Amino acid sequence: MQQFSIALAQVNFKVGDIDGNLQLIADSVAAAKAQYDKKKHEKQQHEKDDSALMIVFSELALIGYPPEDLLLRPSLQHRIESALQQVAILSSNVTIVVGYPWHQGGQLFNMAGVWSKGQQIAQYAKRCLPNYQVFDEQRYFTAGDEVCVFDWQGHKVGLTVCEDIWHDQPVTESKAAGAELIININASPFHSGKLQQRHELLANHAQRHQLPIVYVNQVGGQDELVFDGASFVVDANGKLAASLPEHESIVGLVHFDESLLVQNSVIAPEKTKLASIYDTLVLGVRDYIEKNRFKGIVLGLSGGIDSGLTLAIAVDAIGKDRVEAVMMPFKYTSSMSMEDAKLEADALGVSYKVLPIEPMYDAFMHTLKDEFSGLAQDTTEENLQARCRGVMLMAISNKKGSMVLTTGNKSEMAVGYATLYGDMVGGYSALKDVYKTIVFQLSRYRNEVAAAEGEAEIIPERVITRPPSAELAPDQVDEDSLPPYDILDQILEYYIEGDLSVDGIIAKGFASEEVKRITRLVDLSEYKRRQAPVGVRMTARGFGRDRRYPITNGWKAGS
Amino acid sequence: MQQFSIALAQVNFKVGDIDGNLQLIADSVAAAKAQYDKKKHEKQQHEKDDSALMIVFSELALIGYPPEDLLLRPSLQHRIESALQQVAILSSNVTIVVGYPWHQGGQLFNMAGVWSKGQQIAQYAKRCLPNYQVFDEQRYFTAGDEVCVFDWQGHKVGLTVCEDIWHDQPVTESKAAGAELIININASPFHSGKLQQRHELLANHAQRHQLPIVYVNQVGGQDELVFDGASFVVDANGKLAASLPEHESIVGLVHFDESLLVQNSVIAPEKTKLASIYDTLVLGVRDYIEKNRFKGIVLGLSGGIDSGLTLAIAVDAIGKDRVEAVMMPFKYTSSMSMEDAKLEADALGVSYKVLPIEPMYDAFMHTLKDEFSGLAQDTTEENLQARCRGVMLMAISNKKGSMVLTTGNKSEMAVGYATLYGDMVGGYSALKDVYKTIVFQLSRYRNEVAAAEGEAEIIPERVITRPPSAELAPDQVDEDSLPPYDILDQILEYYIEGDLSVDGIIAKGFASEEVKRITRLVDLSEYKRRQAPVGVRMTARGFGRDRRYPITNGWKAGS
Repeated sequence: MQQFSIALAQVNFKVGDIDGNLQLIADSVAAAKAQYDKKKHEKQQHEKDDSALMIVFSELALIGYPPEDLLLRPSLQHRIESALQQVAILSSNVTIVVGYPWHQGGQLFNMAGVWSKGQQIAQYAKRCLPNYQVFDEQRYFTAGDEVCVFDWQGHKVGLTVCEDIWHDQPVTESKAAGAELIININASPFHSGKLQQRHELLANHAQRHQLPIVYVNQVGGQDELVFDGASFVVDANGKLAASLPEHESIVGLVHFDESLLVQNSVIAPEKTKLASIYDTLVLGVRDYIEKNRFKGIVLGLSGGIDSGLTLAIAVDAIGKDRVEAVMMPFKYTSSMSMEDAKLEADALGVSYKVLPIEPMYDAFMHTLKDEFSGLAQDTTEENLQARCRGVMLMAISNKKGSMVLTTGNKSEMAVGYATLYGDMVGGYSALKDVYKTIVFQLSRYRNEVAAAEGEAEIIPERVITRPPSAELAPDQVDEDSLPPYDILDQILEYYIEGDLSVDGIIAKGFASEEVKRITRLVDLSEYKRRQAPVGVRMTARGFGRDRRYPITNGWKAGS
Repeated sequence: MQQFSIALAQVNFKVGDIDGNLQLIADSVAAAKAQYDKKKHEKQQHEKDDSALMIVFSELALIGYPPEDLLLRPSLQHRIESALQQVAILSSNVTIVVGYPWHQGGQLFNMAGVWSKGQQIAQYAKRCLPNYQVFDEQRYFTAGDEVCVFDWQGHKVGLTVCEDIWHDQPVTESKAAGAELIININASPFHSGKLQQRHELLANHAQRHQLPIVYVNQVGGQDELVFDGASFVVDANGKLAASLPEHESIVGLVHFDESLLVQNSVIAPEKTKLASIYDTLVLGVRDYIEKNRFKGIVLGLSGGIDSGLTLAIAVDAIGKDRVEAVMMPFKYTSSMSMEDAKLEADALGVSYKVLPIEPMYDAFMHTLKDEFSGLAQDTTEENLQARCRGVMLMAISNKKGSMVLTTGNKSEMAVGYATLYGDMVGGYSALKDVYKTIVFQLSRYRNEVAAAEGEAEIIPERVITRPPSAELAPDQVDEDSLPPYDILDQILEYYIEGDLSVDGIIAKGFASEEVKRITRLVDLSEYKRRQAPVGVRMTARGFGRDRRYPITNGWKAGS
């Protein structure tokens, strides 16, 4: 039995871009080798060295995760075969573990393969295929039915893929087949609190079977999913033995001795809950913009807290020089909002314009005068204001090649307090899965970060403390027609994340009529959400692939 | 062995509305009994009568199909149990076969149950769970692993659910277990050509196993899916022995003698391909409007063929009195378009308004003057026209409670020749899955129907024959920037429905550059389609749940 090093390759792949991903793999192999050689060089010349290097990549690394229906393209296998020939060449003096889709016997498998000295030495087909929440793996893949334990450096190494580790069988059977170390390659998207779940889960497996586990996750944003990386190693006692930072592309080397003890226990500091959420939002926005090659971001700044926080995220994602904020006042816009929008834009140093919407609004209303004659004023006029703003932002977006970043939050999207084709326009939404109560917390968090760095306040204090308002009617505030946000968000969380019934929520101590009205609004707003831009998922049930409700829906909320 | 009657209950259920669906089941039981009693009454008094009546409903009839994530609601089982108590009561003097979701041992099954004389006499869990195309059944259900053959009227009856019949095992094993007759309950959505597939499939099973098969399908629209009904019976020789009409809610009685020969072979005339498509579009629009309780439809009428055909569909769906057409001319709108829009509205007798968009367009451009200074005119100005129209339609929709019916076709949606928040606004889209070449055919078809009924032309001939134009720039026609539609649609069909590679399409004889450009446009337009309204699926791969492509996508079309 010999010592060895494992490089955890936490890489930001791009879905579908097999050539680009192969290049990232080659770069990571080179980086791992450089780290490994440096370490070797530091050793005494006379010291015996029988070590070796294994570089571990994430699930479906070659095509990125989730590839969705690209898995049905006819040239998939041909492209993967070509790429794997390159992987084989890269493995001339190292061992490489990599994930890829693979056709065999008329079926498609979610495969992990091991290459060493130019040859493939092992291959494993994922056994547990998730088909819940955002995952549709049974749409594409056939489940494998065998363990894979291969010999390496005199040790027996068991190979597993992502979901496998959330079940008992794959690890238990790998152990029974002789595994002394488990490698688990992942594409595990972030949601708040998930990192702790992963640590606990793997600690349990490790303790129970008395073997170390290496967990490698990809990093980066892919449409609504953000992968947080945070790859790690637990030792045979279940203790965290090494970990890589969240949200960073990085290759981290972990050295094991002959007894499989970790020699260099480098633990990345764990981020606070708010830092983790905030950085996830920034990474999601950055990767959507960069991977889709937008020149920049344009957004509507209202002087309120949602657009203020979204602006900060935009700037942190791609830099102030590529972000443009537009204030579009109307007669209901308060002077406080005008001042605060300007303060926010100035604090971040972004381009800032004021474009009033009266002329367009008046032109529409004039044209529609006959059509509307005899009909009372209602939300139509409010929606029209939001839509004049939406059209303006889209015109700027079209003309300048920048993307509109939508500013709405999850509380609004849940109850439908948002205007389709109005404030809902945009290519991507930063706060789509962030409840208003968390928006407040994130704003304070971002201000604290600024303060700690000696910078000015990003979101003015009074924007955080004054009652939220859409300013679509005189003296309107959100709580005129909604419960206070701390109550609303609890009801929403019980209904959406918790799947509680109306009666179940009332039993938690909320007013019956309020619960009925709020849940009804959630059900009725499905049609709006269906046309909403994608946005970062950061809870265990985001609005997107995660929650698939019919629009036409006769379900009556109740028991 | 005794004779019997089976009522094929082809019902239009509403997803989630368990109480309402139970009422539809009760109504259908009553209708079947009335037909059955009438038939009995016609017989000679002295004739021996040992017959019985079985009423067969479709898959998941109690909750409607597809229920999607409503299956995750905590009160599901409780609600279903209550409803099944009512089904048991309804079965006091008949036999009822009905589909429902059912929790058992911590798992959820897609169940078919049989009730007779107030008692449940059989229960079957669907074995083959589709998880492809629009289907996500493995997200919710566990597959059953047993056949179900029950005794009834001295015969052995095998029970299967939908997808089961598309595989060999369930029928083969039912036969082996003694089945002399197979009942197959379905929720099978329409796509063009599917009826023939079903007939062939069941004829093969029947011939091979020498037993008759009863196929019951639901009817009606549910978001993007339209179920066409067309329930039928094949005899033991595989011959079509009875069939119900497409697109109709109907209960049809089929009498079998002691030898399982069908006594009353009533065959509904099969519709032509175009009639079938047209009626599917009408049913999809009608059910979306009625099940979601919209007061009516408003749409933008451009004088072109897409909006003309959509208007006809709207009127055929809910009647002319609930449909409003709005022509929104701009300086590029031809007088021919003005005339034709008026002709179309008049031919169908709908309310018609002309609301020019110049004032709004000019107001936007004036406000954006500084923002756009130094930048060349481009598609921004075209999109702005479309968005002024979109905002106008949405304002009318909001004010009047009518739904905007979107008028774009599949060819446009494929290549992204549509403006997000412009002509793409709306709650539902009639032609979303209809290629432009089929739009032409359907328009001629609708005119022929009118002619056959002695009515005036619905779509003026010159609207069908003149070169299509978006009229967003002077003298613009679609074929300036796209290949002729008969070429375009073939390329699209190979790429989207056929999953051919770029090289594969070129090998079919199309110009290389054209194929590359078109397929690239398809890939790049995914973000628009993701925010498009739902619309009728009528091909084997619609844009919707059927085709799940990433927006952020590095796949390079090619081999």
